[in-house]
Amino acid sequence: MSGTAKLIGVGVGPGDPELLTLKATRALQEADVVVHFAKDGNASHARAIAAGHLKPGVTELPLRYPVTTEIPNNAPAYCNKIHEFHDAAAAAIAAHLDAGRTVAVICEGDPLFYGSYMHLHVRLAAHYPTDVIAGVTGMSGCWSAVGTPIAQGNDVFTVLPGTLPEAELERRLTDTDAAVVMKLGRNLPKVRRALGRTGRLDRAIYVERGTMADAVVMPLAAKADDEAPYFAVVLVPGWEGRP
Amino acid sequence: MSGTAKLIGVGVGPGDPELLTLKATRALQEADVVVHFAKDGNASHARAIAAGHLKPGVTELPLRYPVTTEIPNNAPAYCNKIHEFHDAAAAAIAAHLDAGRTVAVICEGDPLFYGSYMHLHVRLAAHYPTDVIAGVTGMSGCWSAVGTPIAQGNDVFTVLPGTLPEAELERRLTDTDAAVVMKLGRNLPKVRRALGRTGRLDRAIYVERGTMADAVVMPLAAKADDEAPYFAVVLVPGWEGRP
Repeated sequence: MSGTAKLIGVGVGPGDPELLTLKATRALQEADVVVHFAKDGNASHARAIAAGHLKPGVTELPLRYPVTTEIPNNAPAYCNKIHEFHDAAAAAIAAHLDAGRTVAVICEGDPLFYGSYMHLHVRLAAHYPTDVIAGVTGMSGCWSAVGTPIAQGNDVFTVLPGTLPEAELERRLTDTDAAVVMKLGRNLPKVRRALGRTGRLDRAIYVERGTMADAVVMPLAAKADDEAPYFAVVLVPGWEGRP
Repeated sequence: MSGTAKLIGVGVGPGDPELLTLKATRALQEADVVVHFAKDGNASHARAIAAGHLKPGVTELPLRYPVTTEIPNNAPAYCNKIHEFHDAAAAAIAAHLDAGRTVAVICEGDPLFYGSYMHLHVRLAAHYPTDVIAGVTGMSGCWSAVGTPIAQGNDVFTVLPGTLPEAELERRLTDTDAAVVMKLGRNLPKVRRALGRTGRLDRAIYVERGTMADAVVMPLAAKADDEAPYFAVVLVPGWEGRP
């Protein structure tokens, strides 16, 4: 035990264990406690990515999101349940910090960019010494694996959740040079129709598990079915071969 | 010399040498030739970040952007000059690749996200084996250093160049949950006015040299002067403390 109470949000990158930063690997060597999120019943992706860098026998604190498939995720009951879950997680981490331990919360991608870590950060960072170690985002992992320049020069770049209404997706895709559409899943047909109406379907690239050995990459226009995992993305490159 | 002709775009992250990925450090160990961009008369930032990982005596190919301060950067003469510069740079790299060498082009941030590397990539990737190693972006480095959650859940996130007209900046800042404004420099007063009219000036954070020891971070509303370096950014967090 290091005797230094410190909270560290550690980005472990998009999936390839070699895309951990040197700083992330050092934080994992120095941590007394390693915290990771997962859906109940699933293994933590962040832990799988970082597994090779955990000290043997280090204390682990797995945080399991409550199973909530029976409640729509915009319902007050769902929000309350998630709020309570984050409160309890923060309290469990605070107990380790109060005992003088260094606690590393490992996160896929970058901790403060669409990540679960920030729910702990806003509860704890004002009360304990805190560091955040930036990570390679999932979307950088995707466009790098595909080898597609995404944005350049004076391009406007937009990240859109696939959950937006179809007309809003169309409007926003028309109003940007480059885009990434996240949270695809059952929103895929809607995203495909919106892109088709903007005239950019032919440039859009569908990516599943971008930096993994079993990645799936194809032109979105060539994807015949409507099946997509929730974490699949669509890349809309903004850059058209300028000098 | 490895005898393997390969082009590798290597993201070296936002500035802190510890934010290199393990994959980037391995690429630098395997490279026969290391290529870096800089403005004429300046040292390469990417080389400074990666300096500790270059093999002693490795062949280096510095690419110096032509001095073009005498030509407006939207003029055809400027575009032609930059186009010729990229063509010549690609030809110099191709000569190394034709000789069977592994060539690593090091880039600040992420190679395919607003980076110079992509000009070489589009000229060479179709002709030679090519890998792109994603890096931590400059903006991730900034919001992590500041400890500010930037986007969450169903937020729309937008990257805006400060070069946009003031009315367009205002319109786009009003139409997004979270934003990063890049290319600040002399655009700072315009960006500040646009943010003020959207009612979000109080949440905006001004960041210079985000991950460096001499970083400058302050609320944009508290910045009294109009001086900003070109690579300073403004963060507009979209996330307001949800559960």
